[in-house]
Amino acid sequence: MMQFPTNLAEAIEWLSSFGAAGDGGVTRTLYSKPWQEAQHALREWMEVLGIETRFDSIGNLFGRLGAADSRAQTILVGSHIDTVLSGGKYDGAYGILAAILALSHLKKTYGQPMFNLEVVSLCEEEGSRFPIACSGSGIITGAYSFAEIKGVSDSEGIAFETAMREAGFGVEAENYKVRDDIHSFIELHIEQGPSLEKLAKSIGIVETIVGQKRFRVTVKGESNHAGTTLMKWRKDALHGAVLMIQDLYEWAKAYDENLVTTVGQLHVEPNVSNVIPGQVVFTIDARHPLESVLSTFCESFTKRFLEIASARDLQINMELWHEVPPVQMDSNLNNRIQTICNEQEVAYHVMNSGAGHDAQLFASVCPATIMFVPSQGGISHSPLEYTATEALEIGLDVLIQLLHQLAYVK
Amino acid sequence: MMQFPTNLAEAIEWLSSFGAAGDGGVTRTLYSKPWQEAQHALREWMEVLGIETRFDSIGNLFGRLGAADSRAQTILVGSHIDTVLSGGKYDGAYGILAAILALSHLKKTYGQPMFNLEVVSLCEEEGSRFPIACSGSGIITGAYSFAEIKGVSDSEGIAFETAMREAGFGVEAENYKVRDDIHSFIELHIEQGPSLEKLAKSIGIVETIVGQKRFRVTVKGESNHAGTTLMKWRKDALHGAVLMIQDLYEWAKAYDENLVTTVGQLHVEPNVSNVIPGQVVFTIDARHPLESVLSTFCESFTKRFLEIASARDLQINMELWHEVPPVQMDSNLNNRIQTICNEQEVAYHVMNSGAGHDAQLFASVCPATIMFVPSQGGISHSPLEYTATEALEIGLDVLIQLLHQLAYVK
Repeated sequence: MMQFPTNLAEAIEWLSSFGAAGDGGVTRTLYSKPWQEAQHALREWMEVLGIETRFDSIGNLFGRLGAADSRAQTILVGSHIDTVLSGGKYDGAYGILAAILALSHLKKTYGQPMFNLEVVSLCEEEGSRFPIACSGSGIITGAYSFAEIKGVSDSEGIAFETAMREAGFGVEAENYKVRDDIHSFIELHIEQGPSLEKLAKSIGIVETIVGQKRFRVTVKGESNHAGTTLMKWRKDALHGAVLMIQDLYEWAKAYDENLVTTVGQLHVEPNVSNVIPGQVVFTIDARHPLESVLSTFCESFTKRFLEIASARDLQINMELWHEVPPVQMDSNLNNRIQTICNEQEVAYHVMNSGAGHDAQLFASVCPATIMFVPSQGGISHSPLEYTATEALEIGLDVLIQLLHQLAYVK
Repeated sequence: MMQFPTNLAEAIEWLSSFGAAGDGGVTRTLYSKPWQEAQHALREWMEVLGIETRFDSIGNLFGRLGAADSRAQTILVGSHIDTVLSGGKYDGAYGILAAILALSHLKKTYGQPMFNLEVVSLCEEEGSRFPIACSGSGIITGAYSFAEIKGVSDSEGIAFETAMREAGFGVEAENYKVRDDIHSFIELHIEQGPSLEKLAKSIGIVETIVGQKRFRVTVKGESNHAGTTLMKWRKDALHGAVLMIQDLYEWAKAYDENLVTTVGQLHVEPNVSNVIPGQVVFTIDARHPLESVLSTFCESFTKRFLEIASARDLQINMELWHEVPPVQMDSNLNNRIQTICNEQEVAYHVMNSGAGHDAQLFASVCPATIMFVPSQGGISHSPLEYTATEALEIGLDVLIQLLHQLAYVK
């Protein structure tokens, strides 16, 4: 029989052994062999702990402490089991493991709850195998239908539905019933940024998951000989792009610190040292918790980019290719967390999440929130991802108290 | 028997058929089959024209009108037969074809010259097959020894020497005798830039082939999550690089218009839209006809780049990987060209060459010059390279008169 963990530190190491990559990272993409082994191992562990388990038709794993009243609603707590390629041990995994340990503790200490308490190990969030993110929470909440995503293929051309069926799921997936019994959704997660560490806070209480807009900007000039074309005769696409990017960052300074913007990707054509660039394509990622502020910012730099292009006789095309509105986390849940932190003298920080999470899908169907523990150096999606056990345990303690309040206290 | 051209327009089309690429360009890299066919066809044509031919041991082709006096020096005129991948019909080819037509005309019109007159179809200038440029003129002038270059390999791992021997050359290449009989070297070439066209001039008289310095700049910061890392906490390598490139172009404005500088190549790591760039590598190409000005410019931006990196807590490494000093063309030859243009009412422009040419190798061993005809739109190294026949013929006329003065007039 499998050796199951007895505490949070052991649980993190145990789960990271499923999909352990040679570099110390974890690769556990949706429906892969390590993913299957991890989900089934979690199921066995929960059964051993006396938590009743079931898979839904697409591979989300649930572990339940049922209430006495069959009409009781369900408090759902968990995160996602999948990872990026060579990701860390904590992203997603921590939220599931803490939820299991919390339910086990509550069951042992307080017995049967008044609300159903359910752990969920969501099948997928990262979008690292199929070009679709949050399919686990998306299907549960009805944000996606199975029909919409079943034909999407991975980089090897394997369809979502094929991979799902090979992993042993898919029966009745077409008729997935969106749940209407969820009272609230709670997620515990590492921050994936440096704020809590820099501010020396133990818990991040998330008010808003920020909105995102991502653009692809194509600047076209004229490719010419770097030696024979005088500066005044050039239409240098890279020079134009440089002025735009510099302008973007100058604009960003005029906003509050919740505005973040990034040029992460840039391609030059023909990209030869002695040829003036004829074309540059770059991306812009802009995020802010307020849709109005984000829109105003994007309108500002768009207008300026067109002016820069026009002044330099360059052609420009800007395409908005990805857009997510900001999502508010539930203030009642957050007030409870804040009260718990105050009572327990746990240092907290009320903040926004710059990254997307499953909680934002649940927020459209029930009160939902996510809380953070620190990430060392802000590093995530990397084998170097790390949070000390003590810091993880503070998060678990707050989660236990929150679930106790919600499910056991009248 | 092969059908040989009877005028310059026919000659350009004829030579471009050797290595004709599907896109209208010409690909004739050193020692390739089209290259071999072209050199042998040129030889046959010259023989038909009564010009005595020979190959040297590495594949340079010479066509000679010998003087009566066996002690006479040699006036060498020509350019290179090789091309870039899918290059134009004129680059290099024009200088060889004009030289053959000039010698043929001079022989028919004036008979035997007082100096030996030699066409040279140089085997290689572009550096498009082996990572070495101007091997033809380099070997003739002793700038390179055969021993230095014979082991250099192309992208398929074929050594220079192997390719040379497969093309039928190489006998006695080890003992190549650097020539000491060259009186002067004259090259006729398309401008490969837009100056003559913009100024409506027919002939460019080149005073200096500019000096070049090429740098590789590596900027290192910290790769982080684009959503969770506040702007104030970032070490964005691309933001640093953008400030440097903008600064480079600002510095360039403070110089005369002979200063040209280009960032042609830029690579971002990891180059993902939602990740802050951790590293950027970019190239700088800087050129000016005066070494002192070029050096001062490069020192200026180097100092500023270090300051920008330091101010933003970025690491920087700058490597000077290519350096060519400016080379003066011969003023006596240029004065002759200028006088001819004045007499013939040919509009000329005294200028610098921003591109490198074989003439700069010959300048170290004899009086040498290069003269230009316009390039439409300044376009070169492209199937779109074009110069009208009338413009090519003006260059040929000036060349004929220059060679006549030098080789026939006491």
